[in-house]
Amino acid sequence: MPDRAPLRGLSIVAGQDATPVPEHAFRATAAARGAPTDTVFHSASARDVDAAARAAAQAFGVLRELAPERRATLLERSAERLESHSAPLIDVASEETGLAAPRIASELARTVFQLRLYAATLREGSWVEALIDHGDPARTPLPKPDLRAMLVPLGPVAVFGASNFPLAYSSAGGDTASALAAGCPVLVKGHPLHPGTGELAARAIAESVRELELPAGTLSFLHAGGGRARAVGEELVQHPAIRAAGFTGSQQGGMALARLAAARPEPIPFFGELGSVNPTFVLPAALARRGAAIAEALAASITNSAGQMCTRPGLVFVVAGEAERAFASALAAAAGRVAPQVQLSADHARSWSERVAAQRALPGVGELTGAPQPGPGSSARLLRTSFAVWRARPELGEECFGPSALLVVCDDAGQLEQAVEHLAGALAGALWSDAADAELARRLAPRLAARVGRLVHDGVTTGVEVASAMVHGGPLPSSTRPDSTAVGPRALRRWCRPVSFQNLPEALLPEELREANPRRIARLVDGRWQLPV
Amino acid sequence: MPDRAPLRGLSIVAGQDATPVPEHAFRATAAARGAPTDTVFHSASARDVDAAARAAAQAFGVLRELAPERRATLLERSAERLESHSAPLIDVASEETGLAAPRIASELARTVFQLRLYAATLREGSWVEALIDHGDPARTPLPKPDLRAMLVPLGPVAVFGASNFPLAYSSAGGDTASALAAGCPVLVKGHPLHPGTGELAARAIAESVRELELPAGTLSFLHAGGGRARAVGEELVQHPAIRAAGFTGSQQGGMALARLAAARPEPIPFFGELGSVNPTFVLPAALARRGAAIAEALAASITNSAGQMCTRPGLVFVVAGEAERAFASALAAAAGRVAPQVQLSADHARSWSERVAAQRALPGVGELTGAPQPGPGSSARLLRTSFAVWRARPELGEECFGPSALLVVCDDAGQLEQAVEHLAGALAGALWSDAADAELARRLAPRLAARVGRLVHDGVTTGVEVASAMVHGGPLPSSTRPDSTAVGPRALRRWCRPVSFQNLPEALLPEELREANPRRIARLVDGRWQLPV
Repeated sequence: MPDRAPLRGLSIVAGQDATPVPEHAFRATAAARGAPTDTVFHSASARDVDAAARAAAQAFGVLRELAPERRATLLERSAERLESHSAPLIDVASEETGLAAPRIASELARTVFQLRLYAATLREGSWVEALIDHGDPARTPLPKPDLRAMLVPLGPVAVFGASNFPLAYSSAGGDTASALAAGCPVLVKGHPLHPGTGELAARAIAESVRELELPAGTLSFLHAGGGRARAVGEELVQHPAIRAAGFTGSQQGGMALARLAAARPEPIPFFGELGSVNPTFVLPAALARRGAAIAEALAASITNSAGQMCTRPGLVFVVAGEAERAFASALAAAAGRVAPQVQLSADHARSWSERVAAQRALPGVGELTGAPQPGPGSSARLLRTSFAVWRARPELGEECFGPSALLVVCDDAGQLEQAVEHLAGALAGALWSDAADAELARRLAPRLAARVGRLVHDGVTTGVEVASAMVHGGPLPSSTRPDSTAVGPRALRRWCRPVSFQNLPEALLPEELREANPRRIARLVDGRWQLPV
Repeated sequence: MPDRAPLRGLSIVAGQDATPVPEHAFRATAAARGAPTDTVFHSASARDVDAAARAAAQAFGVLRELAPERRATLLERSAERLESHSAPLIDVASEETGLAAPRIASELARTVFQLRLYAATLREGSWVEALIDHGDPARTPLPKPDLRAMLVPLGPVAVFGASNFPLAYSSAGGDTASALAAGCPVLVKGHPLHPGTGELAARAIAESVRELELPAGTLSFLHAGGGRARAVGEELVQHPAIRAAGFTGSQQGGMALARLAAARPEPIPFFGELGSVNPTFVLPAALARRGAAIAEALAASITNSAGQMCTRPGLVFVVAGEAERAFASALAAAAGRVAPQVQLSADHARSWSERVAAQRALPGVGELTGAPQPGPGSSARLLRTSFAVWRARPELGEECFGPSALLVVCDDAGQLEQAVEHLAGALAGALWSDAADAELARRLAPRLAARVGRLVHDGVTTGVEVASAMVHGGPLPSSTRPDSTAVGPRALRRWCRPVSFQNLPEALLPEELREANPRRIARLVDGRWQLPV
């Protein structure tokens, strides 16, 4: 492809580079060096935000009537461009975030997989949830109308990318891909910790928009930094043309934006995927028989990507005893073998370190890990406390975003059962159990499921498979919309609403609802599923 | 049934009559007589609200693990009780609301139909949206997990019934029925305009709860009046045990409660079905060929139940000319033949009358109907204005809840197309078109669909069929959650969220997700629908 995108440090407003405003210039920091990177970025101005939102509203009028095939092609061309730009993308992302190149490369693979999965979802077509109830003009006392329903897109969507996933949950990540797939123009707020990555990924989509002659307002990318890191996002969420927002990030930042979205004259849905502690229960027989192996798996999960995963196990519940002590030692030993890792930013490292220190300072909280390893980066830390102390101190249920976890030691299985009733909502939870734990596991599983978006058995909570049955979401405070998932084909629904068509002639019906089923999609017809042959 | 429920004027808190608090006593008004009815009601106290919410939270622990069959039986037994109490129910409802007995009887039929439909939905079972993605342990670089997902209930639901549907959208109405079906305990806020109807219907459910030995907290009914008409609802929406709310009523009341729900420390979903103007477009050829018949249908729809339907056509768009003048005359004549009707309350009549008068007083607004008919009740009123005046005056797009409508006369078809772009969100919209209107209809239909929850062709917007493909909801301000429907089996989803189960052994999986499909439901397995044989 001849249009290899250079990094310009500029926002993309409906296909055009925004005019730089010198007073809003900013630099990114190379996480490992702690020093600025080369590019000078310029934050989007309020006028840029407004222009992008208006262009998106214009583009929506075209996009919503576009054949799904064209949107699928946009996703695929964007995936191809991301792949063809993989070398600079991986370089820039790795420099900005401090995440290792192989980790970024696998994240890029996941990002293009998502784009292609949604393209396939569009081509297959059944995602629109087509329903048909045939009418009955002879019904008494009133004729029964012919009713047909399907999902239609909401309009322009604002996307707030994550600090910890510069590709898979950012410019070209799941929110953008699913919104474009659904037929909604997207406005990405750039993340100040990885502006270069965000801009490069956005350019891959913007170039595909241009190549396919789609409306320029289909995608805009707005740098946010230089004194406007917050303002750009707040302006987006409050702009009248924006009809929904997707967010991946902290509980504090997400809840603040969610409240802005709800306080608008016309509130909009805000899909915030926030962090969580992802409670993990290791039942007694499993602990006794394979505590060491479980400890290895958990230590790897806790320290994966410097612990900066929203599904990192943050709370581990076990029953006191010899097996627990052996498990705790094994966990500490395994975590101790992990070399210190650079966090996403100095602020991340400081905030994590302060939170862990505050928990550690509470009476009744001890530490399993030894002195931190020398050199730069954060060493893993494991704290330990009793069920009673954990129950008494709500701050021990809060997320520490980094390579750490809290082992909560219960007196008996009864306390495990009590613990599950007092958990905050989480994205995921895990239950490790052996045959001899069966009865306890049967009691715990539905109650743990009631607190999480995803329940894992005999495995770690990190690792979010992109699949139809994935739920990446969960009760507050882990997400603002637990009725949705940010990952998998069902993520498209977030940007849609159903519309019902009553007694429409064939010519006025969307293709998906015409009697002959020209798009050959699965439909629920008069209460029975009809599948394409 | 021996337990024929008398009207006691008391709230039902988890199966028990609440203790009356004399200072919160109130009376209902017989709408037709404008005089108090016999029963003295007592509003629920703050303590009652709290006790009901706590009992609901307790009940939820049992309900969510109950076999769907038991919940289906609860709905069916409640339907039977409502039928066996139909005589007093119809008497009380008709007296309290002023709606004619036959209208109330048909509403009761619809209410029991809904309960039975949701029971059938539970027995069939596919509503839980079961998804299965089988794992692949051999996948590289990482094994693919086995993932299975389905909907689980949210918890206790607060239900705010409607003034205009004392049965179908109140104690035993769609919100209550769908929430109970989903496995959520329900707390009904009684409506002060039909407290007797609400209490009787609630007793039918509460008695069924008792008969079936379900937890008493499954249903509570809280009278709201006597100085506590607002407080009861506000306390409910803000109670920590309440996990969602359903509301049918005015835009003002609904938005106020929606903002309370969003401002909680832990916000909850608020499904508000508010009013709307339900724009209706009569295209030129249809107007010319069958304007008189369309006028008859519209006049009946506008005046149905004294115009107090949330789907009443409030705005009618036509193109100026001879056909339009004939249509306007026919519409006025048909509306003039409708006898004056009593509204739900003196407040309703006053508020409607003031709103119509305010619109009428605007320059450029005329009236099609003549002097009101003598005697009690409200006579239909039809106003007329031009497209230009309508565009210039936002207040002409607001709902007047009563037997009236505004005819908006456009200069040409181009103004019809402009009008559709400036419509507020509505529950429903209608398009009347003939063969000669085909091209214009094709341009208007998708744009009108983008503003409504349901698009009707060649028919009136009133009449909400209870069916799978019904969408009763729409963009703001017509509903607070346009991604949902308040009517039809999909209404159950509102009270649920999806949960994903990763690598769970069969014994720990919900029945709906076990490999052998013991509940014989439709499931999407590895991307393909599998239907029970």
